[in-house]
Amino acid sequence: MLVFVGLGLYNCADLTLRGLEVLRHADKVYLDTYTSIVPGFSIEVLESLIGKKVVPVDRSILEGRKLINILEEAREKNVALLVPGDPFIATTHISIRLEAEKHGIKTEVVHAPSVISSAISATGLQVYKFGKIVTLVYPDPEIGFYPISSYEVLKDNFNRKLHTFFLLDLREDRKMTIADAVDVLFLLEEKVGDGIISSETLGIGMARIGSPDLILKAGTLEDLKKHDFGPPPHSLIIPGLLHPMEAEALLLLCNANKEMIEKWMKKIK
Amino acid sequence: MLVFVGLGLYNCADLTLRGLEVLRHADKVYLDTYTSIVPGFSIEVLESLIGKKVVPVDRSILEGRKLINILEEAREKNVALLVPGDPFIATTHISIRLEAEKHGIKTEVVHAPSVISSAISATGLQVYKFGKIVTLVYPDPEIGFYPISSYEVLKDNFNRKLHTFFLLDLREDRKMTIADAVDVLFLLEEKVGDGIISSETLGIGMARIGSPDLILKAGTLEDLKKHDFGPPPHSLIIPGLLHPMEAEALLLLCNANKEMIEKWMKKIK
Repeated sequence: MLVFVGLGLYNCADLTLRGLEVLRHADKVYLDTYTSIVPGFSIEVLESLIGKKVVPVDRSILEGRKLINILEEAREKNVALLVPGDPFIATTHISIRLEAEKHGIKTEVVHAPSVISSAISATGLQVYKFGKIVTLVYPDPEIGFYPISSYEVLKDNFNRKLHTFFLLDLREDRKMTIADAVDVLFLLEEKVGDGIISSETLGIGMARIGSPDLILKAGTLEDLKKHDFGPPPHSLIIPGLLHPMEAEALLLLCNANKEMIEKWMKKIK
Repeated sequence: MLVFVGLGLYNCADLTLRGLEVLRHADKVYLDTYTSIVPGFSIEVLESLIGKKVVPVDRSILEGRKLINILEEAREKNVALLVPGDPFIATTHISIRLEAEKHGIKTEVVHAPSVISSAISATGLQVYKFGKIVTLVYPDPEIGFYPISSYEVLKDNFNRKLHTFFLLDLREDRKMTIADAVDVLFLLEEKVGDGIISSETLGIGMARIGSPDLILKAGTLEDLKKHDFGPPPHSLIIPGLLHPMEAEALLLLCNANKEMIEKWMKKIK
């Protein structure tokens, strides 16, 4: 049996009681170390919590030929794979799950808080008002790559007055910050030029969602670029039409400025 | 301080370690009993887990004048309000949070698994391929009410080849099942007549997500209507264009039929 256990967003205290139980009973525990950042996580704390060694596995193992060894181990034993957030938001893990099922190996999931629901929950925005979600990736001007499709998603959501949730690129060597994301959006506006993004565009910057030191800040993209959000992970929402209760939430929970919100609501209507 | 603690989807084992800690240290614990169903939940188990009494509160208290008593209590003491899933997916709780903040009472959130991320995670569909989410509510033919806007959301998502996630109506006296939802969708097709829904439409029925006895079943709406999903809560996804890995997930995890999936993929293209 291969059980995918969600690790949550901040540290070991985000594990559910069921997750803890599964890890304590597992014959082997692997930890995915590359698809996300869990800022307060310590492997030593986890090991003392569950009373056994945890084996970190990186991309080369999870997406490579060595994966089959883990799958074969799961045929005989109880193997747990710890995944940041709620498992399967990244496609790597669903592909591992499908590979296991194709080999006749039973799989299960233990859910945990995900950035998707937690960010919406934390900002006070309404889940019903979001359009398509997108990951904003770094452009690569050397090969002429610009993430134009992210701009198209924003434009399409914007035309429907829906909010756009941008997950920000996380790579081994660099993690996209809100300031980086604003630069990428400005660059995309320059490239595509449909007038969707300006320095007056309202955004909600979010850093370390689910942690005790989360930062939420609503303001123009220009404001957000200057704001100190601290270390990643960061995410960004560009809101569409705000329900009055959502506008109030931005004031009370995301440190927004009243005139700015009113201006935005007039603009979007 | 008022802390909103997510209860998760199935039973007390969905609490995170942080949630458990907050409840154990709270001076008073309230439990929201009306916005969702947590099928395996027992108040006695919770009370023995946290070593104190839990006070159930229903709509009349959380949305009524008595709310101020809870808020005033939170001014002096550590008060926890337990909410199914991840807090604030229902608008009731965000309105309580804003009310508290306006009264100068500090609030915090402890996240937990939400049906939004868990359902996506469990089915193997990709979070990036969902359009707007919507709650499908019961029509009321007596007053001529039909939830036409849900049909419009489906149509809009469908035109973009995006998946539509339907949360199903939960009331004190009745809980919408997948069979009910299919009937409502057929009725809406009859009323609006834009040709979005037919008995051949592919759907994914989900019952008791996050529980050990969850049921996932992909099939035509006609199939789903006949399928025995057991007790609520139920949810329904109408997929748009499926990525090959998503199609495979429906076969391996949601008990779909290969020809049906191929037919659907041709239809949507």
